[in-house]
Amino acid sequence: MAEQTASGDFAALRETIRTFVDERDWDQFHTPKNLSSALCVEAAELLEHFQWLQTGSREELGAAKLEQVRHEMADVLVYLVRLADKLDIDLNAAVAEKMVLNRAKYPADKVRGDARKYDEYKDYKGG
Amino acid sequence: MAEQTASGDFAALRETIRTFVDERDWDQFHTPKNLSSALCVEAAELLEHFQWLQTGSREELGAAKLEQVRHEMADVLVYLVRLADKLDIDLNAAVAEKMVLNRAKYPADKVRGDARKYDEYKDYKGG
Amino acid sequence: MAEQTASGDFAALRETIRTFVDERDWDQFHTPKNLSSALCVEAAELLEHFQWLQTGSREELGAAKLEQVRHEMADVLVYLVRLADKLDIDLNAAVAEKMVLNRAKYPADKVRGDARKYDEYKDYKGG
Amino acid sequence: MAEQTASGDFAALRETIRTFVDERDWDQFHTPKNLSSALCVEAAELLEHFQWLQTGSREELGAAKLEQVRHEMADVLVYLVRLADKLDIDLNAAVAEKMVLNRAKYPADKVRGDARKYDEYKDYKGG
Repeated sequence: MAEQTASGDFAALRETIRTFVDERDWDQFHTPKNLSSALCVEAAELLEHFQWLQTGSREELGAAKLEQVRHEMADVLVYLVRLADKLDIDLNAAVAEKMVLNRAKYPADKVRGDARKYDEYKDYKGG
Repeated sequence: MAEQTASGDFAALRETIRTFVDERDWDQFHTPKNLSSALCVEAAELLEHFQWLQTGSREELGAAKLEQVRHEMADVLVYLVRLADKLDIDLNAAVAEKMVLNRAKYPADKVRGDARKYDEYKDYKGG
Repeated sequence: MAEQTASGDFAALRETIRTFVDERDWDQFHTPKNLSSALCVEAAELLEHFQWLQTGSREELGAAKLEQVRHEMADVLVYLVRLADKLDIDLNAAVAEKMVLNRAKYPADKVRGDARKYDEYKDYKGG
Repeated sequence: MAEQTASGDFAALRETIRTFVDERDWDQFHTPKNLSSALCVEAAELLEHFQWLQTGSREELGAAKLEQVRHEMADVLVYLVRLADKLDIDLNAAVAEKMVLNRAKYPADKVRGDARKYDEYKDYKGG
Protein backbone atom coordinates (compact mmCIF):
# COMPACT_ATOMS: atom_id res chain seq x y z
CA MET A 1 0.00 0.00 0.00
CA ALA A 2 2.68 2.48 1.06
CA GLU A 3 4.69 1.56 -1.99
CA GLN A 4 1.73 2.01 -4.30
CA THR A 5 1.07 5.43 -2.81
CA ALA A 6 4.69 6.43 -3.19
CA SER A 7 4.50 5.87 -6.91
CA GLY A 8 0.84 6.79 -7.43
CA ASP A 9 -1.08 9.79 -8.72
CA PHE A 10 -1.37 11.49 -5.33
CA ALA A 11 2.32 11.11 -4.52
CA ALA A 12 3.25 12.61 -7.87
CA LEU A 13 0.83 15.52 -7.43
CA ARG A 14 2.08 16.13 -3.91
CA GLU A 15 5.63 16.51 -5.15
CA THR A 16 4.64 18.80 -8.03
CA ILE A 17 2.74 21.05 -5.64
CA ARG A 18 5.49 21.07 -3.02
CA THR A 19 7.95 22.28 -5.63
CA PHE A 20 5.55 24.97 -6.87
CA VAL A 21 4.89 26.23 -3.33
CA ASP A 22 8.53 26.14 -2.22
CA GLU A 23 9.70 28.08 -5.27
CA ARG A 24 7.28 30.86 -4.25
CA ASP A 25 7.86 30.64 -0.48
CA TRP A 26 4.10 30.23 -0.03
CA ASP A 27 4.24 27.51 2.63
CA GLN A 28 3.86 30.24 5.26
CA PHE A 29 0.28 30.88 4.03
CA HIS A 30 -0.65 27.20 3.88
CA THR A 31 -2.20 26.55 7.27
CA PRO A 32 -4.85 23.81 7.12
CA LYS A 33 -7.43 26.49 7.92
CA ASN A 34 -6.41 28.66 4.96
CA LEU A 35 -6.14 25.69 2.61
CA SER A 36 -9.63 24.48 3.50
CA SER A 37 -10.93 27.99 2.73
CA ALA A 38 -9.13 28.01 -0.60
CA LEU A 39 -10.50 24.56 -1.43
CA CYS A 40 -14.03 25.75 -0.66
CA VAL A 41 -13.58 28.85 -2.83
CA GLU A 42 -12.36 26.74 -5.76
CA ALA A 43 -15.26 24.30 -5.35
CA ALA A 44 -17.65 27.26 -5.58
CA GLU A 45 -15.89 28.59 -8.68
CA LEU A 46 -16.47 25.16 -10.19
CA LEU A 47 -20.13 25.26 -9.19
CA GLU A 48 -20.50 28.71 -10.72
CA HIS A 49 -20.12 27.21 -14.21
CA PHE A 50 -23.13 24.96 -13.62
CA GLN A 51 -25.49 27.16 -11.64
CA TRP A 52 -27.81 28.31 -14.46
CA LEU A 53 -27.53 25.16 -16.58
CA GLN A 54 -29.97 22.25 -16.74
CA THR A 55 -27.58 19.33 -16.10
CA GLY A 56 -24.13 20.61 -17.09
CA SER A 57 -23.41 17.79 -19.54
CA ARG A 58 -20.42 18.13 -21.88
CA GLU A 59 -22.81 19.16 -24.65
CA GLU A 60 -24.54 21.81 -22.56
CA LEU A 61 -21.21 23.16 -21.28
CA GLY A 62 -19.54 23.44 -24.66
CA ALA A 63 -15.79 23.33 -25.29
CA ALA A 64 -14.81 26.67 -23.75
CA LYS A 65 -16.70 26.14 -20.50
CA LEU A 66 -15.53 22.53 -20.30
CA GLU A 67 -11.94 23.73 -20.31
CA GLN A 68 -12.68 26.18 -17.49
CA VAL A 69 -14.36 23.37 -15.58
CA ARG A 70 -11.25 21.18 -16.05
CA HIS A 71 -9.12 23.95 -14.60
CA GLU A 72 -11.40 24.57 -11.61
CA MET A 73 -11.36 20.82 -10.91
CA ALA A 74 -7.56 20.93 -11.05
CA ASP A 75 -7.56 23.78 -8.52
CA VAL A 76 -9.83 21.81 -6.17
CA LEU A 77 -7.54 18.80 -6.45
CA VAL A 78 -4.39 20.82 -5.88
CA TYR A 79 -5.71 22.29 -2.63
CA LEU A 80 -7.03 18.91 -1.51
CA VAL A 81 -3.67 17.21 -2.09
CA ARG A 82 -1.87 20.10 -0.43
CA LEU A 83 -4.14 19.96 2.62
CA ALA A 84 -3.59 16.19 2.85
CA ASP A 85 0.15 16.82 2.70
CA LYS A 86 0.07 19.41 5.50
CA LEU A 87 -2.12 17.18 7.73
CA ASP A 88 -0.22 14.01 6.80
CA ILE A 89 -3.38 12.30 5.52
CA ASP A 90 -3.32 9.38 3.05
CA LEU A 91 -6.17 10.16 0.65
CA ASN A 92 -6.49 6.60 -0.63
CA ALA A 93 -6.78 5.28 2.91
CA ALA A 94 -9.25 8.05 3.80
CA VAL A 95 -11.58 7.12 0.93
CA ALA A 96 -11.28 3.41 1.68
CA GLU A 97 -12.24 4.13 5.29
CA LYS A 98 -15.13 6.42 4.33
CA MET A 99 -16.52 3.98 1.78
CA VAL A 100 -16.87 1.35 4.50
CA LEU A 101 -18.99 3.83 6.47
CA ASN A 102 -21.00 4.80 3.39
CA ARG A 103 -21.80 1.19 2.57
CA ALA A 104 -23.07 0.68 6.11
CA LYS A 105 -25.09 3.92 6.14
CA TYR A 106 -26.69 3.36 2.74
CA PRO A 107 -27.33 -0.39 2.31
CA ALA A 108 -27.79 -1.02 -1.39
CA ASP A 109 -30.94 -3.08 -1.00
CA LYS A 110 -32.67 -0.36 1.02
CA VAL A 111 -31.76 2.88 -0.72
CA ARG A 112 -31.83 1.80 -4.36
CA GLY A 113 -32.91 4.74 -6.52
CA ASP A 114 -33.44 7.02 -3.54
CA ALA A 115 -31.22 10.07 -3.03
CA ARG A 116 -32.46 11.09 0.37
CA LYS A 117 -29.86 11.45 3.04
CA TYR A 118 -29.35 8.66 5.51
CA ASP A 119 -31.08 10.55 8.32
CA GLU A 120 -34.14 11.30 6.29
CA TYR A 121 -34.21 7.75 5.08
CA LYS A 122 -34.18 6.43 8.61
CA ASP A 123 -36.88 8.87 9.69
CA TYR A 124 -38.97 8.03 6.68
CA LYS A 125 -38.84 4.30 7.23
CA GLY A 126 -39.53 4.74 10.88
CA GLY A 127 -36.75 2.32 11.75
CA MET B 1 -0.12 8.06 -19.88
CA ALA B 2 -3.36 6.25 -20.50
CA GLU B 3 -1.80 3.12 -19.09
CA GLN B 4 -0.56 4.92 -16.00
CA THR B 5 -4.01 6.35 -15.39
CA ALA B 6 -5.59 2.95 -15.87
CA SER B 7 -3.57 1.55 -13.00
CA GLY B 8 -3.32 4.70 -10.87
CA ASP B 9 -5.08 6.06 -7.79
CA PHE B 10 -7.76 7.90 -9.74
CA ALA B 11 -8.63 4.91 -11.90
CA ALA B 12 -8.99 2.73 -8.82
CA LEU B 13 -11.17 5.31 -7.06
CA ARG B 14 -13.31 5.75 -10.15
CA GLU B 15 -14.07 2.03 -10.24
CA THR B 16 -14.84 1.86 -6.53
CA ILE B 17 -17.25 4.77 -6.83
CA ARG B 18 -18.90 3.40 -9.98
CA THR B 19 -19.64 0.15 -8.20
CA PHE B 20 -21.02 1.96 -5.15
CA VAL B 21 -23.27 4.17 -7.30
CA ASP B 22 -24.48 1.39 -9.55
CA GLU B 23 -25.41 -0.85 -6.62
CA ARG B 24 -27.69 1.96 -5.41
CA ASP B 25 -29.00 3.05 -8.81
CA TRP B 26 -27.86 6.61 -8.01
CA ASP B 27 -26.43 7.43 -11.41
CA GLN B 28 -29.75 9.10 -12.28
CA PHE B 29 -28.99 11.84 -9.70
CA HIS B 30 -25.40 12.34 -10.82
CA THR B 31 -25.67 15.14 -13.32
CA PRO B 32 -22.51 17.27 -13.42
CA LYS B 33 -24.58 20.13 -12.00
CA ASN B 34 -25.69 18.08 -8.99
CA LEU B 35 -22.23 16.62 -8.43
CA SER B 36 -20.61 20.07 -8.42
CA SER B 37 -23.18 21.15 -5.79
CA ALA B 38 -22.43 18.09 -3.69
CA LEU B 39 -18.69 18.71 -4.00
CA CYS B 40 -19.17 22.32 -2.83
CA VAL B 41 -21.28 21.18 0.12
CA GLU B 42 -18.62 18.67 1.19
CA ALA B 43 -15.87 21.29 0.85
CA ALA B 44 -17.87 23.54 3.19
CA GLU B 45 -18.36 20.70 5.68
CA LEU B 46 -14.60 20.33 5.66
CA LEU B 47 -14.15 24.07 6.20
CA GLU B 48 -16.60 23.98 9.10
CA HIS B 49 -14.09 22.03 11.19
CA PHE B 50 -11.53 24.83 10.82
CA GLN B 51 -13.66 27.95 11.00
CA TRP B 52 -13.11 28.91 14.65
CA LEU B 53 -9.56 27.51 14.95
CA GLN B 54 -6.30 29.42 14.71
CA THR B 55 -4.48 27.35 12.07
CA GLY B 56 -6.11 23.91 12.17
CA SER B 57 -2.86 22.01 12.73
CA ARG B 58 -3.05 18.34 13.72
CA GLU B 59 -2.39 19.35 17.32
CA GLU B 60 -5.11 21.99 17.36
CA LEU B 61 -7.61 19.64 15.68
CA GLY B 62 -7.05 16.71 17.99
CA ALA B 63 -7.63 13.06 17.09
CA ALA B 64 -11.44 13.07 16.91
CA LYS B 65 -11.69 16.14 14.67
CA LEU B 66 -8.80 14.94 12.52
CA GLU B 67 -10.74 11.79 11.75
CA GLN B 68 -13.78 13.84 10.75
CA VAL B 69 -11.54 15.99 8.57
CA ARG B 70 -10.16 12.83 6.90
CA HIS B 71 -13.70 11.74 6.12
CA GLU B 72 -14.78 15.11 4.73
CA MET B 73 -11.69 15.13 2.52
CA ALA B 74 -12.65 11.67 1.31
CA ASP B 75 -16.14 12.96 0.44
CA VAL B 76 -14.67 15.87 -1.52
CA LEU B 77 -12.41 13.49 -3.41
CA VAL B 78 -15.22 11.04 -4.15
CA TYR B 79 -17.39 13.74 -5.73
CA LEU B 80 -14.43 15.17 -7.63
CA VAL B 81 -13.51 11.79 -9.10
CA ARG B 82 -17.16 11.06 -9.89
CA LEU B 83 -17.58 14.44 -11.64
CA ALA B 84 -14.42 13.77 -13.64
CA ASP B 85 -15.84 10.38 -14.61
CA LYS B 86 -19.16 11.85 -15.78
CA LEU B 87 -17.43 14.62 -17.78
CA ASP B 88 -14.71 12.29 -19.08
CA ILE B 89 -11.93 14.45 -17.61
CA ASP B 90 -8.44 13.13 -16.85
CA LEU B 91 -7.57 14.71 -13.51
CA ASN B 92 -3.82 14.18 -13.87
CA ALA B 93 -3.85 15.88 -17.25
CA ALA B 94 -6.05 18.69 -15.89
CA VAL B 95 -3.61 19.47 -13.09
CA ALA B 96 -0.62 19.27 -15.42
CA GLU B 97 -2.34 21.75 -17.74
CA LYS B 98 -3.34 24.08 -14.91
CA MET B 99 0.12 24.06 -13.35
CA VAL B 100 1.58 25.35 -16.61
CA LEU B 101 -0.85 28.29 -16.41
CA ASN B 102 -0.11 28.84 -12.71
CA ARG B 103 3.63 28.94 -13.30
CA ALA B 104 3.12 31.59 -15.98
CA LYS B 105 0.70 33.65 -13.88
CA TYR B 106 2.83 33.57 -10.75
CA PRO B 107 6.51 33.70 -11.77
CA ALA B 108 8.53 32.46 -8.81
CA ASP B 109 11.04 35.30 -8.88
CA LYS B 110 8.28 37.93 -8.75
CA VAL B 111 5.77 36.60 -6.24
CA ARG B 112 8.06 35.02 -3.68
CA GLY B 113 6.47 35.28 -0.23
CA ASP B 114 3.47 37.23 -1.52
CA ALA B 115 0.00 35.66 -1.41
CA ARG B 116 -1.85 38.33 -3.34
CA LYS B 117 -3.79 37.13 -6.31
CA TYR B 118 -2.33 37.49 -9.75
CA ASP B 119 -4.62 40.39 -10.65
CA GLU B 120 -3.79 42.35 -7.56
CA TYR B 121 -0.14 41.59 -8.04
CA LYS B 122 -0.21 42.83 -11.60
CA ASP B 123 -2.10 45.97 -10.63
CA TYR B 124 0.20 46.64 -7.76
CA LYS B 125 3.44 46.17 -9.64
CA GLY B 126 2.30 47.47 -12.98
CA GLY B 127 0.52 50.53 -11.53
CA MET C 1 -45.31 42.72 12.20
CA ALA C 2 -46.69 42.31 8.70
CA GLU C 3 -46.97 46.05 8.42
CA GLN C 4 -43.42 46.60 9.61
CA THR C 5 -42.14 44.07 7.08
CA ALA C 6 -44.09 45.73 4.31
CA SER C 7 -42.25 48.99 4.89
CA GLY C 8 -38.92 47.52 6.04
CA ASP C 9 -35.49 46.92 4.51
CA PHE C 10 -36.31 43.44 3.21
CA ALA C 11 -39.56 44.53 1.55
CA ALA C 12 -37.77 47.38 -0.19
CA LEU C 13 -34.95 45.08 -1.36
CA ARG C 14 -37.43 42.49 -2.56
CA GLU C 15 -39.15 45.06 -4.77
CA THR C 16 -35.89 46.41 -6.16
CA ILE C 17 -34.76 42.89 -7.06
CA ARG C 18 -38.12 41.92 -8.57
CA THR C 19 -37.96 44.90 -10.88
CA PHE C 20 -34.37 44.11 -11.89
CA VAL C 21 -35.22 40.46 -12.61
CA ASP C 22 -38.44 41.18 -14.47
CA GLU C 23 -36.78 43.75 -16.74
CA ARG C 24 -34.34 41.01 -17.80
CA ASP C 25 -36.86 38.14 -17.94
CA TRP C 26 -34.60 36.18 -15.59
CA ASP C 27 -37.33 34.76 -13.38
CA GLN C 28 -37.25 31.59 -15.48
CA PHE C 29 -33.74 30.82 -14.13
CA HIS C 30 -34.66 31.56 -10.51
CA THR C 31 -35.62 28.18 -9.15
CA PRO C 32 -34.89 27.88 -5.42
CA LYS C 33 -32.25 25.28 -6.33
CA ASN C 34 -30.44 27.64 -8.69
CA LEU C 35 -30.72 30.59 -6.31
CA SER C 36 -29.23 28.60 -3.44
CA SER C 37 -26.30 27.67 -5.71
CA ALA C 38 -25.82 31.31 -6.67
CA LEU C 39 -25.97 32.36 -3.02
CA CYS C 40 -23.29 29.78 -2.15
CA VAL C 41 -21.08 30.95 -5.00
CA GLU C 42 -21.33 34.58 -3.86
CA ALA C 43 -20.58 33.60 -0.26
CA ALA C 44 -17.41 31.90 -1.50
CA GLU C 45 -16.44 34.95 -3.54
CA LEU C 46 -16.76 36.93 -0.33
CA LEU C 47 -14.62 34.40 1.53
CA GLU C 48 -11.97 34.58 -1.19
CA HIS C 49 -11.07 38.11 -0.11
CA PHE C 50 -10.26 36.89 3.40
CA GLN C 51 -8.60 33.54 2.77
CA TRP C 52 -4.94 34.55 3.04
CA LEU C 53 -5.43 37.37 5.57
CA GLN C 54 -4.92 37.21 9.33
CA THR C 55 -8.26 38.57 10.53
CA GLY C 56 -9.66 40.59 7.63
CA SER C 57 -10.13 43.79 9.64
CA ARG C 58 -10.88 47.04 7.77
CA GLU C 59 -7.25 48.02 8.18
CA GLU C 60 -5.91 44.72 6.85
CA LEU C 61 -8.37 44.76 3.93
CA GLY C 62 -7.64 48.31 2.82
CA ALA C 63 -10.06 50.56 0.92
CA ALA C 64 -10.08 48.76 -2.44
CA LYS C 65 -10.68 45.30 -1.00
CA LEU C 66 -13.25 46.66 1.44
CA GLU C 67 -15.28 47.97 -1.48
CA GLN C 68 -15.13 44.55 -3.17
CA VAL C 69 -16.21 42.94 0.10
CA ARG C 70 -19.17 45.37 0.30
CA HIS C 71 -20.21 44.32 -3.18
CA GLU C 72 -19.91 40.58 -2.51
CA MET C 73 -21.99 41.05 0.63
CA ALA C 74 -24.58 42.86 -1.46
CA ASP C 75 -24.65 39.90 -3.88
CA VAL C 76 -25.16 37.45 -1.04
CA LEU C 77 -28.01 39.56 0.32
CA VAL C 78 -29.65 39.93 -3.09
CA TYR C 79 -29.78 36.17 -3.64
CA LEU C 80 -30.94 35.57 -0.07
CA VAL C 81 -33.80 38.05 -0.42
CA ARG C 82 -34.68 36.65 -3.84
CA LEU C 83 -34.73 33.08 -2.51
CA ALA C 84 -36.95 34.19 0.38
CA ASP C 85 -39.26 35.83 -2.15
CA LYS C 86 -39.52 32.69 -4.29
CA LEU C 87 -40.14 30.45 -1.26
CA ASP C 88 -42.44 32.98 0.43
CA ILE C 89 -40.27 33.11 3.55
CA ASP C 90 -40.32 36.05 5.99
CA LEU C 91 -36.66 36.57 6.87
CA ASN C 92 -37.36 38.51 10.06
CA ALA C 93 -39.62 35.76 11.31
CA ALA C 94 -37.08 33.10 10.29
CA VAL C 95 -34.31 34.74 12.31
CA ALA C 96 -36.60 35.28 15.30
CA GLU C 97 -37.50 31.58 15.17
CA LYS C 98 -33.88 30.46 14.78
CA MET C 99 -32.63 32.68 17.60
CA VAL C 100 -35.02 30.95 19.99
CA LEU C 101 -33.45 27.63 19.01
CA ASN C 102 -29.92 29.06 19.27
CA ARG C 103 -30.54 30.41 22.76
CA ALA C 104 -31.75 26.95 23.85
CA LYS C 105 -28.85 25.13 22.18
CA TYR C 106 -26.16 27.44 23.52
CA PRO C 107 -27.15 28.56 27.03
CA ALA C 108 -25.14 31.67 27.83
CA ASP C 109 -24.02 30.48 31.25
CA LYS C 110 -22.64 27.22 29.87
CA VAL C 111 -20.89 28.21 26.64
CA ARG C 112 -19.38 31.55 27.61
CA GLY C 113 -16.14 32.07 25.71
CA ASP C 114 -16.31 28.65 24.06
CA ALA C 115 -16.80 28.38 20.27
CA ARG C 116 -17.27 24.64 20.05
CA LYS C 117 -20.39 23.50 18.30
CA TYR C 118 -23.37 22.44 20.32
CA ASP C 119 -22.82 18.74 19.60
CA GLU C 120 -19.21 18.78 20.66
CA TYR C 121 -20.10 20.78 23.70
CA LYS C 122 -22.72 18.28 24.71
CA ASP C 123 -20.40 15.34 24.07
CA TYR C 124 -17.62 16.99 25.97
CA LYS C 125 -19.63 17.91 29.02
CA GLY C 126 -21.88 14.90 29.02
CA GLY C 127 -19.04 12.45 28.39
CA MET D 1 -31.35 57.16 5.19
CA ALA D 2 -29.34 56.85 8.38
CA GLU D 3 -32.52 57.32 10.36
CA GLN D 4 -34.37 54.69 8.33
CA THR D 5 -31.51 52.24 8.85
CA ALA D 6 -31.48 52.92 12.55
CA SER D 7 -35.06 51.75 12.83
CA GLY D 8 -35.04 49.15 10.03
CA ASP D 9 -34.81 45.38 9.81
CA PHE D 10 -31.01 45.29 9.67
CA ALA D 11 -30.58 47.56 12.67
CA ALA D 12 -32.97 45.43 14.69
CA LEU D 13 -31.17 42.21 13.67
CA ARG D 14 -27.81 43.74 14.44
CA GLU D 15 -28.90 44.52 17.98
CA THR D 16 -30.40 41.07 18.53
CA ILE D 17 -27.19 39.42 17.36
CA ARG D 18 -24.94 41.73 19.39
CA THR D 19 -26.84 40.78 22.53
CA PHE D 20 -26.64 37.07 21.71
CA VAL D 21 -22.90 37.25 21.07
CA ASP D 22 -22.09 39.41 24.07
CA GLU D 23 -23.99 37.13 26.45
CA ARG D 24 -21.73 34.28 25.27
CA ASP D 25 -18.48 36.26 25.06
CA TRP D 26 -18.11 35.10 21.45
CA ASP D 27 -16.97 38.40 19.99
CA GLN D 28 -13.36 37.16 20.34
CA PHE D 29 -14.05 34.56 17.62
CA HIS D 30 -15.80 37.01 15.29
CA THR D 31 -13.01 38.22 13.06
CA PRO D 32 -14.27 39.15 9.58
CA LYS D 33 -12.25 36.20 8.25
CA ASN D 34 -13.96 33.71 10.57
CA LEU D 35 -17.40 35.21 9.96
CA SER D 36 -17.02 34.97 6.20
CA SER D 37 -16.08 31.29 6.62
CA ALA D 38 -19.11 30.69 8.79
CA LEU D 39 -21.35 32.48 6.28
CA CYS D 40 -20.00 30.27 3.50
CA VAL D 41 -20.57 27.12 5.56
CA GLU D 42 -24.17 28.10 6.27
CA ALA D 43 -24.78 28.91 2.60
CA ALA D 44 -23.58 25.41 1.74
CA GLU D 45 -25.83 23.86 4.39
CA LEU D 46 -28.69 25.69 2.70
CA LEU D 47 -27.60 24.38 -0.70
CA GLU D 48 -27.44 20.84 0.67
CA HIS D 49 -31.22 20.74 0.97
CA PHE D 50 -31.59 21.44 -2.74
CA GLN D 51 -28.76 19.45 -4.27
CA TRP D 52 -30.66 16.35 -5.38
CA LEU D 53 -33.99 18.08 -6.08
CA GLN D 54 -35.35 19.23 -9.43
CA THR D 55 -36.17 22.86 -8.64
CA GLY D 56 -36.60 23.00 -4.86
CA SER D 57 -40.09 24.53 -4.96
CA ARG D 58 -42.14 24.62 -1.76
CA GLU D 59 -44.05 21.60 -2.99
CA GLU D 60 -40.95 19.58 -3.78
CA LEU D 61 -39.32 20.54 -0.47
CA GLY D 62 -42.27 19.65 1.72
CA ALA D 63 -43.03 21.17 5.12
CA ALA D 64 -40.21 19.61 7.14
CA LYS D 65 -37.45 20.54 4.68
CA LEU D 66 -38.93 23.99 4.17
CA GLU D 67 -38.55 24.65 7.88
CA GLN D 68 -34.91 23.55 7.76
CA VAL D 69 -34.38 25.81 4.75
CA ARG D 70 -35.90 28.73 6.70
CA HIS D 71 -33.45 28.10 9.51
CA GLU D 72 -30.41 27.84 7.23
CA MET D 73 -31.46 31.11 5.59
CA ALA D 74 -31.69 32.67 9.04
CA ASP D 75 -28.15 31.47 9.80
CA VAL D 76 -26.84 32.98 6.55
CA LEU D 77 -28.53 36.28 7.39
CA VAL D 78 -27.23 36.32 10.96
CA TYR D 79 -23.62 35.92 9.83
CA LEU D 80 -24.07 38.47 7.06
CA VAL D 81 -25.48 41.07 9.44
CA ARG D 82 -22.77 40.28 11.98
CA LEU D 83 -20.03 40.65 9.37
CA ALA D 84 -21.53 43.96 8.24
CA ASP D 85 -21.53 45.08 11.87
CA LYS D 86 -17.85 44.15 12.40
CA LEU D 87 -16.79 45.87 9.14
CA ASP D 88 -19.12 48.85 9.68
CA ILE D 89 -20.89 48.26 6.37
CA ASP D 90 -24.41 49.57 5.63
CA LEU D 91 -26.09 46.68 3.82
CA ASN D 92 -28.82 48.82 2.27
CA ALA D 93 -26.24 51.21 0.85
CA ALA D 94 -24.10 48.28 -0.36
CA VAL D 95 -27.00 46.78 -2.34
CA ALA D 96 -28.01 50.17 -3.74
CA GLU D 97 -24.41 50.67 -4.91
CA LYS D 98 -24.14 47.15 -6.37
CA MET D 99 -27.46 47.40 -8.20
CA VAL D 100 -26.18 50.46 -10.07
CA LEU D 101 -23.23 48.37 -11.25
CA ASN D 102 -25.46 45.40 -12.11
CA ARG D 103 -27.79 47.57 -14.21
CA ALA D 104 -24.79 48.87 -16.16
CA LYS D 105 -23.25 45.40 -16.60
CA TYR D 106 -26.48 43.72 -17.68
CA PRO D 107 -28.49 46.22 -19.76
CA ALA D 108 -32.08 44.96 -19.81
CA ASP D 109 -32.53 45.36 -23.55
CA LYS D 110 -29.44 43.27 -24.30
CA VAL D 111 -29.58 40.39 -21.83
CA ARG D 112 -33.32 39.69 -21.75
CA GLY D 113 -33.89 35.98 -21.12
CA ASP D 114 -30.18 35.19 -21.15
CA ALA D 115 -28.48 33.97 -17.98
CA ARG D 116 -24.92 33.98 -19.20
CA LYS D 117 -22.48 35.96 -17.19
CA TYR D 118 -21.53 39.42 -18.30
CA ASP D 119 -18.10 38.33 -19.51
CA GLU D 120 -19.44 35.50 -21.58
CA TYR D 121 -22.14 37.73 -22.93
CA LYS D 122 -19.63 40.34 -24.02
CA ASP D 123 -17.39 37.73 -25.60
CA TYR D 124 -20.27 36.13 -27.37
CA LYS D 125 -21.80 39.30 -28.75
CA GLY D 126 -18.54 41.07 -29.40
CA GLY D 127 -16.97 38.08 -31.18
